[in-house]
Amino acid sequence: MPSLTHLDDAGKASMVDISDKTPCLREAIAEGRLLLHPDTLRLIRENGLKKGDVLAVARIAGIQAAKQTQHLIPLCHQIPLSKVAVDFDVTGENVHLTATVKTTAATGVEMEALTAVSIAALTIYDMCKAVDKNIQITDVRLLSKTKTPLP
Amino acid sequence: MPSLTHLDDAGKASMVDISDKTPCLREAIAEGRLLLHPDTLRLIRENGLKKGDVLAVARIAGIQAAKQTQHLIPLCHQIPLSKVAVDFDVTGENVHLTATVKTTAATGVEMEALTAVSIAALTIYDMCKAVDKNIQITDVRLLSKTKTPLP
Amino acid sequence: MPSLTHLDDAGKASMVDISDKTPCLREAIAEGRLLLHPDTLRLIRENGLKKGDVLAVARIAGIQAAKQTQHLIPLCHQIPLSKVAVDFDVTGENVHLTATVKTTAATGVEMEALTAVSIAALTIYDMCKAVDKNIQITDVRLLSKTKTPLP
Amino acid sequence: MPSLTHLDDAGKASMVDISDKTPCLREAIAEGRLLLHPDTLRLIRENGLKKGDVLAVARIAGIQAAKQTQHLIPLCHQIPLSKVAVDFDVTGENVHLTATVKTTAATGVEMEALTAVSIAALTIYDMCKAVDKNIQITDVRLLSKTKTPLP
Amino acid sequence: MPSLTHLDDAGKASMVDISDKTPCLREAIAEGRLLLHPDTLRLIRENGLKKGDVLAVARIAGIQAAKQTQHLIPLCHQIPLSKVAVDFDVTGENVHLTATVKTTAATGVEMEALTAVSIAALTIYDMCKAVDKNIQITDVRLLSKTKTPLP
Amino acid sequence: MPSLTHLDDAGKASMVDISDKTPCLREAIAEGRLLLHPDTLRLIRENGLKKGDVLAVARIAGIQAAKQTQHLIPLCHQIPLSKVAVDFDVTGENVHLTATVKTTAATGVEMEALTAVSIAALTIYDMCKAVDKNIQITDVRLLSKTKTPLP
Repeated sequence: MPSLTHLDDAGKASMVDISDKTPCLREAIAEGRLLLHPDTLRLIRENGLKKGDVLAVARIAGIQAAKQTQHLIPLCHQIPLSKVAVDFDVTGENVHLTATVKTTAATGVEMEALTAVSIAALTIYDMCKAVDKNIQITDVRLLSKTKTPLP
Repeated sequence: MPSLTHLDDAGKASMVDISDKTPCLREAIAEGRLLLHPDTLRLIRENGLKKGDVLAVARIAGIQAAKQTQHLIPLCHQIPLSKVAVDFDVTGENVHLTATVKTTAATGVEMEALTAVSIAALTIYDMCKAVDKNIQITDVRLLSKTKTPLP
Repeated sequence: MPSLTHLDDAGKASMVDISDKTPCLREAIAEGRLLLHPDTLRLIRENGLKKGDVLAVARIAGIQAAKQTQHLIPLCHQIPLSKVAVDFDVTGENVHLTATVKTTAATGVEMEALTAVSIAALTIYDMCKAVDKNIQITDVRLLSKTKTPLP
Repeated sequence: MPSLTHLDDAGKASMVDISDKTPCLREAIAEGRLLLHPDTLRLIRENGLKKGDVLAVARIAGIQAAKQTQHLIPLCHQIPLSKVAVDFDVTGENVHLTATVKTTAATGVEMEALTAVSIAALTIYDMCKAVDKNIQITDVRLLSKTKTPLP
Repeated sequence: MPSLTHLDDAGKASMVDISDKTPCLREAIAEGRLLLHPDTLRLIRENGLKKGDVLAVARIAGIQAAKQTQHLIPLCHQIPLSKVAVDFDVTGENVHLTATVKTTAATGVEMEALTAVSIAALTIYDMCKAVDKNIQITDVRLLSKTKTPLP
Repeated sequence: MPSLTHLDDAGKASMVDISDKTPCLREAIAEGRLLLHPDTLRLIRENGLKKGDVLAVARIAGIQAAKQTQHLIPLCHQIPLSKVAVDFDVTGENVHLTATVKTTAATGVEMEALTAVSIAALTIYDMCKAVDKNIQITDVRLLSKTKTPLP
C-alpha cells in the first residue's frame, strides 16, 4: 500500500528531498468554479464590459498567491515560476476559473495552480459578498500536468 | 439594484472605508469538503490514530492563512483575530473542514474563515497527491456569521 | 535644534514609543508622477478605455503595498488601515498618481500613502518597460495629512 | 495539573480565544547571549566605533522580526506593537542582547521580545560566520513582563 | 506599434512566460534622489559621522525590499539575487541613492534595483519626517542594465 | 586579520556577491536545546504519545521559517531548499532540537538550519509558557556543514 510521501517512518512531517530530481519544463493547469446568483453574475459581466475590475483584481490576487504557495502550504518547495496566468469564463450560472503555471524546476507546480484558483475565487467572493449571501466555491481540481525534458 | 461594494462610481477597486463602523464581537464559521479516494481517507485516519500529522499540518496552515488574509485577498482589511480554530471530520467519503474565527474589530471575518478552510484543504491535497490523483475541493462556503455589541 | 526621532541618545535606531498617543481619525494623501513617452501614455489610455488593466494592476499593487508598509519601512508601526484608495490621471505628458489612506489608530499614515504611490508607480513602470526605455518616477510627496478626534 | 493552553480537550492546536481579555499597557523584556571568539568580538567593537554596521543591521532585523512574530509562531495573535527596541552590550566574552517590546493590546508580547532577540542574534551570527566557526546562541529567555491598566 | 508585454491579446494581465529564456549574468543599477532641507541633510551627515544609523537602516530596508520585489510588483518573476548593494551620497542639496543588483537568472533585475532605491528613499523619509515637512523623492530611474553569457 | 565579509571597505553592509560561485549539493545540520520544567516535559511527552501536537506545530513552524530565512536575516540570499527536516528528542531534562537543510545552490544553508531550530524552539516556548515560567533556549549552533559537487 502506498504511503503518504510527506510523512517519514515515524509519521513526522518533513519537506520531501528533491536534491536528486532533474529540472524539467513543467506545466500544471487547475480549475475551479464559483457559484453565484444570476444577478451577481450579471453585475460582474457588465462591469467586465466597462472596466473588468472584479476579474482584474481576482486575476492579480491569483497570480500573487501562486508566488506565495511555498509560504502558504507548509511542505511545498520554493519554486521559481516562469509563467502564471489566471482566466475566467463568466456564464449565466457560475464563474469558471483556470490557472496555468509553468516552471523549469525539479518538482511540479500543481499546488501553485490550485492555490492561484483558490485565492482568485476567494477574491471574487470577497468583492461580491455584500450583494450575494450564498456564494460557493466548488470543483477545485487539477486539469492537467505535464513534464518535458529541458533542451 | 445593489452594486458591488468594492468598486466606486467609476468602477475602480478600493478598500471600503470602515472608519465609521463600530467595533463588535464578530464570529464567522466556514466549511468545505475534500473528496479523496477511500484508501487515502483510511491512510489519513490511521495516521491520525497514531500521530495525526496530516491534519495537524493542515490545521496549522489554515490558522496561519487566516492571519495572512489581508495580504492574500487584496481588498480585505487588516483585522486582528482574537481566535482561530480549524476542525476536521474524516468520514469514509470525504474530509469535512470547518474554521471558526473571532474578532472584536469594525468589520467581519468571513473571508478569514473561508481562507483558513481553503488553505487547510490545499495542504491536505498537497500531502495526499502522491497517492491520490483525483482529489477535489468542493462546497467551500460560509456557515454562519454573528455580531454582538461589545460590553 | 531638532533631532531625528527614530534615533535615541546614542544614535541607535528604535521604533518610537506610541503607547501614550490617543487614537484619532487620521488621513493622509500622497502623490507622485511617472514620466513616460507619449506613445506609452497612449497605450495605457487606450487599454484603459478597453480593459484598464495596467492601471487596475497598479491600483491593486498600491493598495496591497500600503498594508505591507510596516514590513517594508523598518521603523513603521503596524497600523490597521480603514481605507486605501489609489487613483491615476493619465495626461499626454505623464501619469499622476494619488493615494488616500485612513486609519483610526494612534499614529499617522503618511508612509502608507507614500508607499502605495511608490509601488503603484513601479508596477506601471514594470508593465511598460518593454516599450519605453526612459521611464522616470518623480515628485513623490505628501499632499495633506489630517487628524480629527474620534467621536 | 495544568494543561497546555494551546491544545483543546482533544489535543488539537488552536489560537487561544482572547475576545474577553481587556486591553492593557503591556511590556516584555527578553535577553540572549551570543558566544563569539574574542577576535570576532573585537572586530564587532572596532567596526562599531567606526560605523556600527553589524549591530545596526542586527537591530533592524530584530525590530522587523518582532513585527512578524504572528506569522512565525503559528499560534501567536496579531498584536500592534507600540514600541520595539533592541540593545547590545559587547564584552570581551560575548554579545549580550536585550529586546523591549510594548503594546496596548489584549495579550502579552513576550514572544515578540524573544523573537526579536533570536533573529538579532542570528543576524550577528550570519555576519560573523565567515571569520568565526564556533558561534553559539544561548540563554535566550524572558527578563520581565509587566501589565498596567490603561488610563 | 509595440504592445504592452504583460497584457495578452484580450488585454488581460499575466506573468510573461520566460521558460525559454537562457540564464545569463545580469546586472542592473538604478538611482533616485531625495530632496531634504539643508538642516536635515546636515543631521544625516553628522549622525553619519558618528553612527550612520539613518543610512544604515535605509540600506538594509533597500536590500530586503529587493528580495521582496516579486511580492510587491504583481507580474515580476521570483529571481534569486546573487548580489544587492545600496549606496548613498549625501550632498548639501539632497541624498543621491543608487542600488546595484545582480543575478544569474533568465530575466533581468531592473525592477529589483528600482524597488531597492524606492524603499530605501522612503525609509530615509520616514526617519526624517518629524523634522522636515517638505521631503520629496524624485528622479527614480534605471542607470544601466547589462547581460553577459554565463561561462 | 580576517574581516567581516558582509561589510565592504567603508564598513557598509551589502549582500555578498555569489555570482561566480558554483552550485553544489550542500547540507547543514543545526541543533539547539530548550530547558523546561520536568512537569512541562512530561506534558509534552504525554501529549506526544496521544497527538504529538506541540512538536507537530513546532516542526511546521521550523520548516516554514527555514523558507523565510532570506526575509528574516537581511543579508542572506534567496536559496531554494530541496529538503528541510526538524527533529526533537524529549528527555527528562530538555527538548533537543535538530534541523537538517539541503540545497543545490551556490551558497550554504547553515542560516536556514539555525533559523529552523530557533523558530521551532520559540514555538514550543509559546505553547508551554502558560504552565512554565522559566523556559530557556540554549546551545543553538551548527553541527555540520557539507558540500559535494553536483553530478
